[in-house]
Amino acid sequence: MTRLLGAGALAAGIMWCASSVGPAAAQTSPTSGGPVDAAIIEDLVAAGRILADQGVLDAFGHVSIRHPANPNRYLLSRNLAPALVTAEDIIEYDLDSNPVNANGRSGFLERFIHGEIYKARPDVKAAVHSHSPAVIPFGISQMPMRATYHMAGFLVAGVPVFEIRNAGGMTNMPGNMLVRNGALGKALAETLGDKPVALMRGHGNVVVGPNVQIAVYRAVYTEINARLQTIAIAMGGPLNFLEKEEGEHIDQAIQSQIARPWALWKQKVMGSK
Amino acid sequence: MTRLLGAGALAAGIMWCASSVGPAAAQTSPTSGGPVDAAIIEDLVAAGRILADQGVLDAFGHVSIRHPANPNRYLLSRNLAPALVTAEDIIEYDLDSNPVNANGRSGFLERFIHGEIYKARPDVKAAVHSHSPAVIPFGISQMPMRATYHMAGFLVAGVPVFEIRNAGGMTNMPGNMLVRNGALGKALAETLGDKPVALMRGHGNVVVGPNVQIAVYRAVYTEINARLQTIAIAMGGPLNFLEKEEGEHIDQAIQSQIARPWALWKQKVMGSK
Amino acid sequence: MTRLLGAGALAAGIMWCASSVGPAAAQTSPTSGGPVDAAIIEDLVAAGRILADQGVLDAFGHVSIRHPANPNRYLLSRNLAPALVTAEDIIEYDLDSNPVNANGRSGFLERFIHGEIYKARPDVKAAVHSHSPAVIPFGISQMPMRATYHMAGFLVAGVPVFEIRNAGGMTNMPGNMLVRNGALGKALAETLGDKPVALMRGHGNVVVGPNVQIAVYRAVYTEINARLQTIAIAMGGPLNFLEKEEGEHIDQAIQSQIARPWALWKQKVMGSK
Amino acid sequence: MTRLLGAGALAAGIMWCASSVGPAAAQTSPTSGGPVDAAIIEDLVAAGRILADQGVLDAFGHVSIRHPANPNRYLLSRNLAPALVTAEDIIEYDLDSNPVNANGRSGFLERFIHGEIYKARPDVKAAVHSHSPAVIPFGISQMPMRATYHMAGFLVAGVPVFEIRNAGGMTNMPGNMLVRNGALGKALAETLGDKPVALMRGHGNVVVGPNVQIAVYRAVYTEINARLQTIAIAMGGPLNFLEKEEGEHIDQAIQSQIARPWALWKQKVMGSK
Repeated sequence: MTRLLGAGALAAGIMWCASSVGPAAAQTSPTSGGPVDAAIIEDLVAAGRILADQGVLDAFGHVSIRHPANPNRYLLSRNLAPALVTAEDIIEYDLDSNPVNANGRSGFLERFIHGEIYKARPDVKAAVHSHSPAVIPFGISQMPMRATYHMAGFLVAGVPVFEIRNAGGMTNMPGNMLVRNGALGKALAETLGDKPVALMRGHGNVVVGPNVQIAVYRAVYTEINARLQTIAIAMGGPLNFLEKEEGEHIDQAIQSQIARPWALWKQKVMGSK
Repeated sequence: MTRLLGAGALAAGIMWCASSVGPAAAQTSPTSGGPVDAAIIEDLVAAGRILADQGVLDAFGHVSIRHPANPNRYLLSRNLAPALVTAEDIIEYDLDSNPVNANGRSGFLERFIHGEIYKARPDVKAAVHSHSPAVIPFGISQMPMRATYHMAGFLVAGVPVFEIRNAGGMTNMPGNMLVRNGALGKALAETLGDKPVALMRGHGNVVVGPNVQIAVYRAVYTEINARLQTIAIAMGGPLNFLEKEEGEHIDQAIQSQIARPWALWKQKVMGSK
Repeated sequence: MTRLLGAGALAAGIMWCASSVGPAAAQTSPTSGGPVDAAIIEDLVAAGRILADQGVLDAFGHVSIRHPANPNRYLLSRNLAPALVTAEDIIEYDLDSNPVNANGRSGFLERFIHGEIYKARPDVKAAVHSHSPAVIPFGISQMPMRATYHMAGFLVAGVPVFEIRNAGGMTNMPGNMLVRNGALGKALAETLGDKPVALMRGHGNVVVGPNVQIAVYRAVYTEINARLQTIAIAMGGPLNFLEKEEGEHIDQAIQSQIARPWALWKQKVMGSK
Repeated sequence: MTRLLGAGALAAGIMWCASSVGPAAAQTSPTSGGPVDAAIIEDLVAAGRILADQGVLDAFGHVSIRHPANPNRYLLSRNLAPALVTAEDIIEYDLDSNPVNANGRSGFLERFIHGEIYKARPDVKAAVHSHSPAVIPFGISQMPMRATYHMAGFLVAGVPVFEIRNAGGMTNMPGNMLVRNGALGKALAETLGDKPVALMRGHGNVVVGPNVQIAVYRAVYTEINARLQTIAIAMGGPLNFLEKEEGEHIDQAIQSQIARPWALWKQKVMGSK
């Protein structure tokens, strides 16, 4: 059932967000970073369901965490809608996005987004890739995203826009908008730089954080901020966005209070436990 | 209970989206294309419920599939809100939209939309007619729909607008906006051409696909794209829509990945099975 | 518990949408139009719940029907949020909005909206008063409501706006926006004229129909049309609204098909029966 | 577990909306205003859940009531998302926002909003602080909030905007947007003046009322009014907002009818009781 992910399959142009990721023989798999506590996996599963429940993810998009014991591994579900993921669907990858334990399960073609960001950003422990709807218009217009209120203070760092038409010159597939290999993932990570959020033109965005709760929080409030900024733009006149100092301060503050929204959101999607 | 659908009944102007479709005598019914697998019918039933759940269909509108064994037949529910349809409500039609097995059940007056598209487009295996709300404004303005993001890449083919005022010259009912006969269905199919989507001015749209999953997917993302393009327009300035090559590429890619959204959407409306 | 609704109580300015409506002595009550079939009452109860479920009514607003046996009586719930109403909460009124059978139950102060419309419009058998949110902006701007699509074809009749500041000259309570007596109800009915919908500036709207299903349908699609027209306006450029002939034709057609949305909406709020 | 809330902890800049509020020794706690009826606590708990259910509160924000027996005490939940609060989570505070009975439970850092408003406004018996989304754009633009319809008549009093950049001059933490001490709470109360609502630039708003039902009502309709005013602005042209006299009259009227929405909203979040 497993098969090698070859250049030919990619060039066929019919691969999109998933591909069988298991190598042909077990001995070529990267070594595992070790067992991961069930509570950590549960939070990763919850993260995807929360993002679906909050309208950030639809059937597509994905959330990952860096392996807690080995910074050169990360954890990401197999090719499945986030709302349907359970602990059994989590696959471990190395930072080149080779699976450790695919066991025939197919993975996301765009997993390179995660691997390359973990390479470039040692501070990042969790990443979200979504097609967060209200954010899309900012990616195709000249309007930069700004921090409309303190809940999105992290946006004062600036929100760069990734244009795959430029980065895509590295491949032989003009017109393919997917981050389907390490080179494109690296280009995206370079656009992200040291920021928490980068938009992807005509596609979606990536959001990162020092843990999965904060990455989820930022993905949710990137979406809400987009809605509110859109409304504010329609009002016209000068708009009074957060100053850099204000955003940096409140981002720190929120990191200390993340348990509050997490408790609410997790209970909603995982039940009363 | 059954009665002939005569020109007189149409001219009375009180017929809209439903009419009794059973011919007076059984021997005048077209022959059946043969039995259809229950799983295929289940997906057709699910399609209507998914489109209602996703806000594309309200109590009106309908989704059909071409008969899997006979390309000259199609399957469509009786006159009922899509969210309430079960397998027992599916009727088989020939491409002139005569029922094979109405058994006194009334059908949609606008079923000619489906029959005429199946005639004109051998590649089409499923069709959706909806009043998808966010799309309506594009049908009455001069603003063409464009592909705002890769999820709606299929829109790069262009989105024509059907004006029944022009086509309506073929009938004796000026002001009647319904696609209530074969001639109007044919005119709509001509406007659609080889595209996946056509708008109907002041009415709704039609979406087609090579199978029911892809037709449903396209109907959902036509609605979402309309919302996002509307927001982008309000931002002003030049907007960076998908290039033709990008849209064509990603449309192919999504066709290979359709199982992912279908699994999520179907579970939501059909339960855990 | 019951008390007379005197001018003094009104002048106190603390009455709004409800007041105790029972006359002091039973012998002053109007005579009843006779018993009403339980299925008709059930549909009236369902109407309020449907309008709440569809976002037309919040905790306020009300829906009434003309008495099926006596055109000089109408039926309206006691002072209660429509989503909470049951058959036991329905009160019968004469067209001056005196209760037949209040039995100490308080009624809506604005019931005069219903009574005066039934007086002025023999064709009307059901009426809805709501604060339907998307419609409010049309009532306070210079922008007339237009029929954006065929589902709201009934709007081609024109949508007048009631300005109580003009009609309020009849009272001693300047600034009171409520239709709290027969004179104001009559003025509103005059603004409505022979139309299906009238807006009330800074307040809401009234919608009428030849039966409760059509009145509910029109109230729902007045709200949706307002949303879609608002979006279309934001697109700019000439907009292609329905022609009068188109709207009149489709309104007739929908009246013949009202069972379809009613079945869906009623099942959603009243359960599987 | 309890610790003193010192200036050092604040200056560390990692405190946001919560802090451990228990004083080190029991003898320094303020005295209690006395036991509070369980029905009153239940309504306070319901208030938070209603505001979450109505989209005014997310995981953040809070609602308080003045102590019914002692005007120098108020009641507010511990640091928890409002939708998760139960009666056991309510803490009593004096008007300097020192807890009477924290017992190690941490409180909201921004509780000073409540304490200082209760000091400045003897008429206020309940207060809501939220990040009510549709209101945010008004706080960062030059567009004043106006009463769009009678449901928000209370807004005719005018809606001032609090700019913490000015008030923050009182502290040593430039860029900190939180109302984290009595001086900032006092400055906010001064901006509020005798009004029912004040916006907080880039942050949210405060809403007050003579009881918890009316404060909740006003918070809900401040949010809805913001949505409707935004739509009306987009229509352009002169807009016909409520006159002062109209708003004052209807605000009085609604205060007499508050049981109607409260019954609906409370049943929805607290069950059938």
